[in-house]
Amino acid sequence: MSTLSATLSSITAGGPDGWDLHRRAMRMIAAGEPVIPLSIGEHDIRTDPAILAAMDAAARGGRTGYAEIAGTPALRAEIAARVQAQSGVVTTPANVIVMPGGQAGLFAAHRAACDPGDVALYVDPYYATYPGTIRAVGAQPRSVIAAAEAGFQPAEDDLRQAAQAGASQGRTRSLLINSPNNPTGALYSRATLEGIARVCREADLWLISDEVYDTQVWEGAHLSPRALPGMAERTLVVGSLSKSHAMTGSRVGWIVGPEAAIAALDALATHTTYGIPGYIQDAALFALQQGAGFEAGIAEPFRRRRAIVERVLARTTSVRAAPMRGAMYAMLDIRATGLSGEAFGRRLLDEERIAVMPGESFGTAGAGHVRVALTVDDARLDEALSRLVALAERLAAPA
Amino acid sequence: MSTLSATLSSITAGGPDGWDLHRRAMRMIAAGEPVIPLSIGEHDIRTDPAILAAMDAAARGGRTGYAEIAGTPALRAEIAARVQAQSGVVTTPANVIVMPGGQAGLFAAHRAACDPGDVALYVDPYYATYPGTIRAVGAQPRSVIAAAEAGFQPAEDDLRQAAQAGASQGRTRSLLINSPNNPTGALYSRATLEGIARVCREADLWLISDEVYDTQVWEGAHLSPRALPGMAERTLVVGSLSKSHAMTGSRVGWIVGPEAAIAALDALATHTTYGIPGYIQDAALFALQQGAGFEAGIAEPFRRRRAIVERVLARTTSVRAAPMRGAMYAMLDIRATGLSGEAFGRRLLDEERIAVMPGESFGTAGAGHVRVALTVDDARLDEALSRLVALAERLAAPA
Repeated sequence: MSTLSATLSSITAGGPDGWDLHRRAMRMIAAGEPVIPLSIGEHDIRTDPAILAAMDAAARGGRTGYAEIAGTPALRAEIAARVQAQSGVVTTPANVIVMPGGQAGLFAAHRAACDPGDVALYVDPYYATYPGTIRAVGAQPRSVIAAAEAGFQPAEDDLRQAAQAGASQGRTRSLLINSPNNPTGALYSRATLEGIARVCREADLWLISDEVYDTQVWEGAHLSPRALPGMAERTLVVGSLSKSHAMTGSRVGWIVGPEAAIAALDALATHTTYGIPGYIQDAALFALQQGAGFEAGIAEPFRRRRAIVERVLARTTSVRAAPMRGAMYAMLDIRATGLSGEAFGRRLLDEERIAVMPGESFGTAGAGHVRVALTVDDARLDEALSRLVALAERLAAPA
Repeated sequence: MSTLSATLSSITAGGPDGWDLHRRAMRMIAAGEPVIPLSIGEHDIRTDPAILAAMDAAARGGRTGYAEIAGTPALRAEIAARVQAQSGVVTTPANVIVMPGGQAGLFAAHRAACDPGDVALYVDPYYATYPGTIRAVGAQPRSVIAAAEAGFQPAEDDLRQAAQAGASQGRTRSLLINSPNNPTGALYSRATLEGIARVCREADLWLISDEVYDTQVWEGAHLSPRALPGMAERTLVVGSLSKSHAMTGSRVGWIVGPEAAIAALDALATHTTYGIPGYIQDAALFALQQGAGFEAGIAEPFRRRRAIVERVLARTTSVRAAPMRGAMYAMLDIRATGLSGEAFGRRLLDEERIAVMPGESFGTAGAGHVRVALTVDDARLDEALSRLVALAERLAAPA
């Protein structure tokens, strides 16, 4: 075979992807073993039939040809209105480009910010694809630790130091954040976001703000950093209907940013994806028009299950949950067991047939934790957590 | 605004995109003027309702969550079987990755072949996105002329020279071809393809073979260069259902290539698109299962309209059609008028309300031509061609 490009080969250069335990669990389930899967960040419900009916009506109505590459005018306008209502920042359709999902938005945003060799910052613990996405545009990923002890909020000084350290090895061009956060369930405070904004302004960084969990906020309120002073001109917000509307499989999301950036991203889309299906855009428009009540309904099971986590964990000192302020996950500190997240996760799967993600899968700051996705029904979640706690207590008990 | 990356800004650095006349025509149509649009490479039919019904059944049946990123096993197997039957090359699902459309395939294939600074060859005349796609991966586009006088077939020596010329300014890593060809309607002969294969083997190039028009062949037979000796290991075939099944808007295509390349492209997809909707994959599977008769039916109008072009042009010496061996276009030589394709196209729009693409939109080798898309009904095409010929005869007549 002829040689593949170094850029392509680099994508997976970060070592094991952290999904080994999850894949083993999936194989066990496929083999008929009664494993409770708490490793997947995907709703246990399907897309609402009314949204699918809107899609079918659009397709049969003839929306099967090329659609506008940057998104249909109606969908761009609806997204702009939503973002403006949520953030208070004036947002027009020219600030919006429709993307085939949030991941495509993360890639395009980094392509907009970074050239090959540039440094791109991201926060650890992180969603699995972050460093590979940065490598996919030829840039160098550099992580900033958000410590469990700080509630997984990144510290302004650490960010500043990383931005400056980067400068010696390549221009630092961007910082990627995610609040509400996967995997930690953290919601960045106003103070955290103001610190982030200061560093971005000082170091002239693009802020790439992954806000795909913006409808899953359990305490406090979601604040988009694009709304902070001087940030609209340097922030690319990545949004998606995957989590807010249980539409993961439909691959529909967006980037909101400065008009000139959106125009350049339109050219990128013309040369990478050529837009997304018109009938999916019509379905997305219908979904957004269902309003906040509909979205609250989609988020409700996670709010309920978060209460189950709190109730079950109140009975033990061997497992502690990080503050669960948003998103569909609980990050559980199991350091009292003396095990790593990896080792605990392995025993949990082998002995209790419960699949979780080791915290180490999400970077060094997740060590000694496991991530529990709140994506099985309440009764199974309750049972799984009780068994998880029992295992931790057996391990933590003095011999 | 913070600065955009040079890579992103470079995408549109090729000057005017050649679509000005088309855009003006679209504005005239929107304003109610009776323009006959022969500028768009898109079917005048919609996606078959049976395919849309399969999609709807899949979606309502629950295929709304994340699908396998490289494609569902069933769809990859169906594509592999199709490619093997068509080309005679042993092809397994591990040789196939599903892409969100042919354009996404072109981008990913170039990402696989090229690093920033590398030279990527393509043939002129070319489909509009080709040079920008190469720039989108940070590589340098370099064109090889396929002259009208040679039936728009690239010459082996010109390709060899370009591959060697590239070496002094950056490694030459790939050659992009398209047969059946948009915009020229050429079908590359076995001799042309063997010459291409020799150059790729000698210079260790990836051959990126855009075969999206493989069901639209009017004379001779489609030959995939992946079937030539030593080429399966260095060819990335880009395919799509857009043209073969009138599914442009559904954004579903594929890349076929060596297993290791497909595995690396799976990682790229994980970090760029995260796959395509499962319900679209089920619809694509259903579409492919309809067989060759269905595809011939989709291609039939273009075969019929090609005959109309031949009949109308038989009456004149002022306009000559390049050999129409495949694809949904006629490339008309209007040099007898003394005008450029651009000037002729402008007069045709202004005086006759007929929209075509100037040959110059597709590179230097298309000069003095206009591209006519066979995408309006037979009667309108007949009328438009007759008026086009009449204009050319008025212009060509001695004053």
